[in-house]
Parts: sequence; C-alpha cells; structure tokens
Amino acid sequence: MKDVKLADLPLRDDLRGRTPYGAPQLDVAVRLNTNENPYPPPPALVDDVTRSIAVVARDLHRYPDRDAVDLRADLAAYISQSAGFSVSGADVWAANGSNEILQEILQAFGGPGRVALGFEPSYSMHPIIAAGTRTEWAPTPRRPDFSLDVDQAMAILRDRQPDLTFVTSPNNPTGQSVPLDDLRELVSGAPGMVVVDEAYAEFSSRPSAVSLLDEYADKLIVTRTMSKAFAFAGGRLGYLIAAPAVVDALQLVRLPYHLSVLTQAAARAALRHADATLASVAQLVAERERVVAALAGMGFTVVPSDANFVLFGPFSPDAWQAYLDRGVLIRDVGIKGHLRVTIGAPDENDAFLAASKEIIG
Amino acid sequence: MKDVKLADLPLRDDLRGRTPYGAPQLDVAVRLNTNENPYPPPPALVDDVTRSIAVVARDLHRYPDRDAVDLRADLAAYISQSAGFSVSGADVWAANGSNEILQEILQAFGGPGRVALGFEPSYSMHPIIAAGTRTEWAPTPRRPDFSLDVDQAMAILRDRQPDLTFVTSPNNPTGQSVPLDDLRELVSGAPGMVVVDEAYAEFSSRPSAVSLLDEYADKLIVTRTMSKAFAFAGGRLGYLIAAPAVVDALQLVRLPYHLSVLTQAAARAALRHADATLASVAQLVAERERVVAALAGMGFTVVPSDANFVLFGPFSPDAWQAYLDRGVLIRDVGIKGHLRVTIGAPDENDAFLAASKEIIG
Repeated sequence: MKDVKLADLPLRDDLRGRTPYGAPQLDVAVRLNTNENPYPPPPALVDDVTRSIAVVARDLHRYPDRDAVDLRADLAAYISQSAGFSVSGADVWAANGSNEILQEILQAFGGPGRVALGFEPSYSMHPIIAAGTRTEWAPTPRRPDFSLDVDQAMAILRDRQPDLTFVTSPNNPTGQSVPLDDLRELVSGAPGMVVVDEAYAEFSSRPSAVSLLDEYADKLIVTRTMSKAFAFAGGRLGYLIAAPAVVDALQLVRLPYHLSVLTQAAARAALRHADATLASVAQLVAERERVVAALAGMGFTVVPSDANFVLFGPFSPDAWQAYLDRGVLIRDVGIKGHLRVTIGAPDENDAFLAASKEIIG
Repeated sequence: MKDVKLADLPLRDDLRGRTPYGAPQLDVAVRLNTNENPYPPPPALVDDVTRSIAVVARDLHRYPDRDAVDLRADLAAYISQSAGFSVSGADVWAANGSNEILQEILQAFGGPGRVALGFEPSYSMHPIIAAGTRTEWAPTPRRPDFSLDVDQAMAILRDRQPDLTFVTSPNNPTGQSVPLDDLRELVSGAPGMVVVDEAYAEFSSRPSAVSLLDEYADKLIVTRTMSKAFAFAGGRLGYLIAAPAVVDALQLVRLPYHLSVLTQAAARAALRHADATLASVAQLVAERERVVAALAGMGFTVVPSDANFVLFGPFSPDAWQAYLDRGVLIRDVGIKGHLRVTIGAPDENDAFLAASKEIIG
C-alpha cells in the first residue's frame, strides 16, 4: 500500500493537529494513573462471568437484546438499594462505558448550535465528546482550590444559558463531591438538561443526585460506571439513571445492538457479586485517608478527595517523569504544579509514598 | 418520579417525531429478518470463547488495550488470507459492530457542512448514522432493478462532489455485489473518501475491494463485520481495512477503551475457528440458490443475490403480516411491493417456502 499521511486525508478541520485521548499505557510495576480498582475480581465473580459467557456464547450467531432489558433491571435494583431512591429498568440506560452514554446524551440534546457547560478542571472527555458531537463547549472555572462556587455557577448559567450542564461529583481529577443542596440549586437553576457524572459515587459518603430525580425528572440525568468501584474497567459498562423519556430520547441516537451479549451477561454476573466487589471500596477509602495524611505529612498540598484518587502538589514540570523513573506511573492531568495518583493496593501506595518522599527531597 | 414526556425534553429538533431504528425482536419460530447466520457457533468455538474469557476476566478491573493490537493483527491475518491482498494490523481498525466503525468514519470525515452520498435502497443505517453525525445525506437512486448504474453514478459524483461516498457490496437489502472494475471506476472518480461496505462479502464470489487499497490508499475504506459469515452478531465486532493514516484519523474520534477485554478475547477466539464457521457460508449460498429457484418457480420476482438474504416480490402491503401469521418473521425494508428474507437453515427455509406458496396462492 502506498504511504499516505494523515495530513493528506480530508479530515474535518477541527481535528487537524489533534492527538488521540488517552493516558500512556506503559508496562510499569506500579500503575496508579487511570483510577482503576487495584483489587482483581474475586474468583467467584470470575467463575460466574465465565459460566454466564459459556451459556450466551452458544447463541453468538444471534443479535443481542437491543434494549438490554434484563441488565437495565439489574442496574436499577442496584441503584434502588444503594442510592436510597427506587428506580426501575425503564429509568436506566446502559452502553459500552460511560463515554458512550455521554456521547449519546450529547447527540440527543447537544450538537451544532447548542452549548454544553462544565466546571473545569473536570473529566477531560466531557469537552472531547462535546467536540465529537459538534456541541460548543463552555468551560467555566472552579475556585482556585478546585471547589465549586455555586453562587458564581448560578450566575454563569443565567448568563450563558447552556443547553447542557455537566457537574462531576466527585469531580475528576480534583476529588471533591458536591453537597446535595448545592446540586439541587444547580439542577433547579440550570436552563437545560443537567448531567451529574457520578463515576466515582461509590467512594463518596455524600448522597447521590439520584434522589433529585423525584423533583427534576424533566432535566436531570445521573451517569455512572462499573469501571471504578465495581472493578469492571475491562468490561466497559456505563449507565445512566433518568426519566424513561430521556431513555426514549437516547434510543433515537444509539447504535442498534450496541451492547454485546458478552457485555450484558458479564455485567449481570458482576452485579450479582456487588457485595464482594464493593467491599473493596471501604478498603480504598481507608487507604486514601492514609495516603492523604502521609502526603500532607511530607509537606505536599493535597486536594480533599471523595474518590479513589488524590490530586496533589506542588510540583516542578519534571515530577511525572521522576515518579516514572522510580517505577510508579501516575497521571499528569494538565493542571500546573499538580499530579493525580490513583489509590492502589497498600503495597502500591507504599511504593508511591516512598517515591514521593524521595521526590519532595 | 413524575411523568415526563419525550416532547417535554429539549431534544434536538431533527430528532423530533422519529422512532428508534430496529427490526421487531419477536419471539417467532422462524426468524429470518436480521440476516443472522442460522448456524450456532461450533462447540469448539464456544469452548474457546469461554476459556479465553475465563483468562481475561481475572483482569476485569484493568482497562482493555485501547488500541486492540492483537485483535487487529488477527483480523489482518484473516483478510490477508481471504481477500488476496496482504494487510497488517496497522491497516485495520475495530469497533463494537460495523455501525460504530461507520459512525467514527462519519465523525472524522463528515459532519456539518459535509455531504455523504449513497446509492439507495441500501443499508438504512448509513443515512441514520450520517444524521447522527450531522452529515448531509445525498440519496442517489439505483436502477429500477436495484443494480448500480456506474455511468450515472459517476455523473452524480461529479455533480454533487460528496465528501464521502458509500458503496455497499453486496448491497443490503437488494443483494447484488458490484464488480471490481465498477468499484475501481467509482473509487477513482469519487472526489472524497469512499467507504465500500462489505458486511456480506464472504457470501459473494466477486473479489473484495480490499485489493484496490494498493491503488487508492488515500481514499478507500473497506468495512466488514463478524456478524454475518462469522456467526458473531451477538459479539458485536465490526472492522475496517484502510491505510494506517485512516486509522490514525479514527483514533481522534474513537471513545477511549471502546472495545472491552471480553469483546477482544471472544473475537480473537472466533477468528481461530474461522475455517469451521465459514464452512457455513457455502451451505448458505447453496440454500440461497435453492430458495431463489423455488421462489421463481412459484412466480415471484427475485432480485439476484450475492448475500445471505433475498429481496423478492411482488407483494400487497399486508404480506409481511401474512408471513408472521404463519410463524415466519421476515423483513419489510420499506421497498414497495418487496420483502427481504434471510437465508436460514434448510428447515427454516422450508417453512418460509411453504408460507410463500400459501401467500402467493
């Protein structure tokens, strides 16, 4: 095949010069860069996934249930039990990771001529997926300490009138979650749809925004993932909780049969072992507190975190490499003077803390 | 939750009044409506998928290989061996079904202000995915017998100057494939990117467009799926073959970690059993010829097919229901006076032919 360069192709203009999203996937002893759960799935879960796949694999020649009815019912049962607000499968929609959920939301409610607003720094896929759906992105600053100034946010919402407002709680990459009263004020005041991205909800002791669906069914969407607390990053399962009409809207833009029989079966198996998997959450929260205290003891400034990661500093620009040189891969999330570390297993956190002590000198 | 109607939500305007894509998923004895392969995966394949999943399930807490390097190498080996043109993993990109591949292509090379052109009737997801990416769709008619008039097509390409041209070969839902010389003329003459959708390529004896990549690496994209010949509809694996620069372009719009470890492992297992699975293709082609001859013998007009389905008529508008009443689910693809039947196993085809005989009276 003759050699063709990307620059020779009729790529759409706004993609020119861009690079693909994604943290380096490096083969390093201690990988604390993508907020994975360090604890492997328990053997009973692995067995259940395997047995479930053995059953559905016999029908791989048939298309999956396009509406993933059983999986959505199972997700609804989990949310009803954990978030203190009863929902049914009709209130849930699932996709291949929460990124696909967010893309479907932006396809249905965003697009050319519409504006999505987020409080930055936050999950960097929000503006990328907005761009992918040609939705204008309105970045709105947080306070210097990365907390959300609700009064200022309300003023900006009134001013900008976004079609979609993204609130990440707990916020990635900074860690704080938003109190329910603040969420209520934001949802109430936002002019369009509000997406509360709760990818890290299980690590926070604050109430979920799900309970606000009772009041704001016409505008609130809560997104979740099984990648983090459920230790299911490799299985790719994101979902949302919202009014059935929102699910109807997303079905107009979803790709048909988007969720494989493998994904549906494996996610249902993982949900059957929720108690075992979620037991790791308490361990990770305890480790988070230990890491935060140790870092503070070394003289680092640590942003308060309700998630399974911690943003900390101050750093010189070469600090990320200094960690990597010590066999510890953490994340440069593009916030000057800061790095983000995922909370790992105790030995991984020890290795990270030892490297931190060397680096702060 | 209070009752909210879809009409109450700020859905983007062009989605209002639309209904979700998808054939009815009905529990009927004989389902010949979605071009599935009727033959279940062989037991050795099911075992291999299960064993492969058992291994990767231990690492479900980790994100998948974002670039699916091993799977793409395996797909490249299959194409190199079957399409008579050697490609490597760098020339292949994979996603959750060919629909996601097509969406990524339209995100990268289409979008607002750009035009995609297709020869209709054809795969109805092409205009739907174009709309989902806000790409203007330019439908271009085929001849009354549904074949492609290349001279007319070339004139329209010169006139419309589309950014993307879709050629489906074999064409769904009509069945004909496009001769390689005609494809070469279309690819050569098209002003922008050309997507040859070869979802049904394995059922055709005509050469694949893949061999044209040698000449047209700067504009040709060939898409494939494992849903049909590979009997892997439930596994959701679509892919493309193109220059590495095209893959680079798609990586700018793909959602990170879009392919789960489950999908990657199961698809690789299925590819290891390609010889066994693809043996069903010859059976289905023989059955297709039997069905076509029987329908013609009954007095139906049958469109020539190189795929695993047949478009035939003439019908009154109630014919689809008449088949369903006889326990046979086929597809109304929206072409007046015609219905499409998927070639099934011999007993399914017998049931379909028996119903056909009753219906034609």
